[in-house]
Amino acid sequence: MNLTLALDIGGTHMRAAVFLDKENLPIKHSRIRTQGGNESTFDRLIRLIRAITPPNQSINQIGIAVPGLIDPHQGVILTTPNIPEWTGMPIVEMIEDELGVPTVMGNDANLAAMGEWRYGAGQGHHHLLYLTISTGIGGGVIIEDRLLVGSHGLGAELGHVTILPDGPLCSCGQRGHLEALASGTGIATYVAEQLLAGKASCLKGKPDTQLIAKAANNGDNLAKAAFDRAGYYLGLALANYLTIFNPTIVIMGGGVSQTGDLLLNPVRRSLDSALLSCEYLQDLVITQAALGDDAGLFGALALAQGNKSLIQNPK
Amino acid sequence: MNLTLALDIGGTHMRAAVFLDKENLPIKHSRIRTQGGNESTFDRLIRLIRAITPPNQSINQIGIAVPGLIDPHQGVILTTPNIPEWTGMPIVEMIEDELGVPTVMGNDANLAAMGEWRYGAGQGHHHLLYLTISTGIGGGVIIEDRLLVGSHGLGAELGHVTILPDGPLCSCGQRGHLEALASGTGIATYVAEQLLAGKASCLKGKPDTQLIAKAANNGDNLAKAAFDRAGYYLGLALANYLTIFNPTIVIMGGGVSQTGDLLLNPVRRSLDSALLSCEYLQDLVITQAALGDDAGLFGALALAQGNKSLIQNPK
Repeated sequence: MNLTLALDIGGTHMRAAVFLDKENLPIKHSRIRTQGGNESTFDRLIRLIRAITPPNQSINQIGIAVPGLIDPHQGVILTTPNIPEWTGMPIVEMIEDELGVPTVMGNDANLAAMGEWRYGAGQGHHHLLYLTISTGIGGGVIIEDRLLVGSHGLGAELGHVTILPDGPLCSCGQRGHLEALASGTGIATYVAEQLLAGKASCLKGKPDTQLIAKAANNGDNLAKAAFDRAGYYLGLALANYLTIFNPTIVIMGGGVSQTGDLLLNPVRRSLDSALLSCEYLQDLVITQAALGDDAGLFGALALAQGNKSLIQNPK
Repeated sequence: MNLTLALDIGGTHMRAAVFLDKENLPIKHSRIRTQGGNESTFDRLIRLIRAITPPNQSINQIGIAVPGLIDPHQGVILTTPNIPEWTGMPIVEMIEDELGVPTVMGNDANLAAMGEWRYGAGQGHHHLLYLTISTGIGGGVIIEDRLLVGSHGLGAELGHVTILPDGPLCSCGQRGHLEALASGTGIATYVAEQLLAGKASCLKGKPDTQLIAKAANNGDNLAKAAFDRAGYYLGLALANYLTIFNPTIVIMGGGVSQTGDLLLNPVRRSLDSALLSCEYLQDLVITQAALGDDAGLFGALALAQGNKSLIQNPK
């Protein structure tokens, strides 16, 4: 009997699930708040792992998905949003020291791509592009059945490419990144600015993306324009990524992508008009993610269950 | 004794070289014009191969570098600039049928990346980004010692990504691609337009990139502004590619990159200011190409000499 523990660290919650042998239905799962009380976040993580480990058994391997800039080769977190105390932390070594269990780590959006490829919408594909569009924009790429991570594991930060020079400010401090233009935050910021400038709309103040989507579906012009604008830039970025990676499947995840045609119609228009050649559309599937919020957890499972070599490569 | 024939097909010339065993100094080399007389371009190619084959010997494998959109898995040219008669041509099968020699093919800029990686400035690196900046902009990427080509071999078209939405027209018919902004053609077009609009400059009419570079080095403000502008967009693109691939080396080839600091200073300024994090600069080398015009030929050599698996992968 072989037990794998998959962990997904979020800004609000951390989640854990235990899987038996090569199965992908967890025998146990649990989630706690990432931060709380006087306990350090790392102590909470260790407590979560201990609590979910079945009595009188031991975990054989651990896979962990962490947001932010991480070095998966070294097992070190460089910076992770919402958990400043983890900056520079060698989390893999610390878990291995504490529990004696071999541990591997990946960026959460990269591992979500791996989860969708191994267990979700991307099964059977060898060249996959995954984008998650929610508060921010993240992504991951599978090339010839291998996860793109780059020399220090910092690759595939697909939301932080410049799409509009001198464009709006991004969460990272740069301007004109895809995330600043097409994420939920980007859409909401644009609407708030237009309202402040006096644009006519049924919306008031600083509406969130869900309210904006509802208004757009009810015909509000500003709300529709906000999704058209986000979709336009997302389509440009997708055209770039098709030109760069030539995948056979594009998987869109995250809450904002679930607004459906509101976003996808303008995406498709700008993608088609920006592409270098129709050849990039040959055999291409564009589809929604299948695993929802579990994609990162399943990617951590795939990583721990024998795709370790995908990340432990020579620099 | 094992003989490898490497071919590089250019718009003006096609070049061939024969290499012995694993050596990388050719025992014979030759070049002829790509088109001429009443002969078809394919017949000229076969004649070139026959002429360079040493008497009483036979070639064991052929590697061929072709510009444009090609499918290296199928060995088919989709479209190649300057040789319209080759559109849709299954060149690998045709060469194998004609000569009975196993043949592999790659895009010329992709193979130039492979040449620099195997024999040039990128030796010893496992994650490499190569950009060639001349009339157009091409490139190639090595990820974990493998060439990025994508599902149908159309990947890594690094000059045809949108950097400035609604920007100037590109050779491919799209707008705002890196090639339209930062290639020699992009620089010359910008200067010609500014002159037409009455901008003061020592330049007149439609000067070429060399003349513009000379004027810039002599202090001409318009010429300097043209290189600053190209370098600015090239720096943005480089920042994007570092974010996507996290390489340990960036190699710049092509005539325009040889203008040195004129282009590289503005590149470096915009690269530094657009990067998501300084972490991407860790262990990063930015350098000039070492193989010049021979990079594609050496890439074809590397491909034929046993890196066939790099391109013959499952879709």
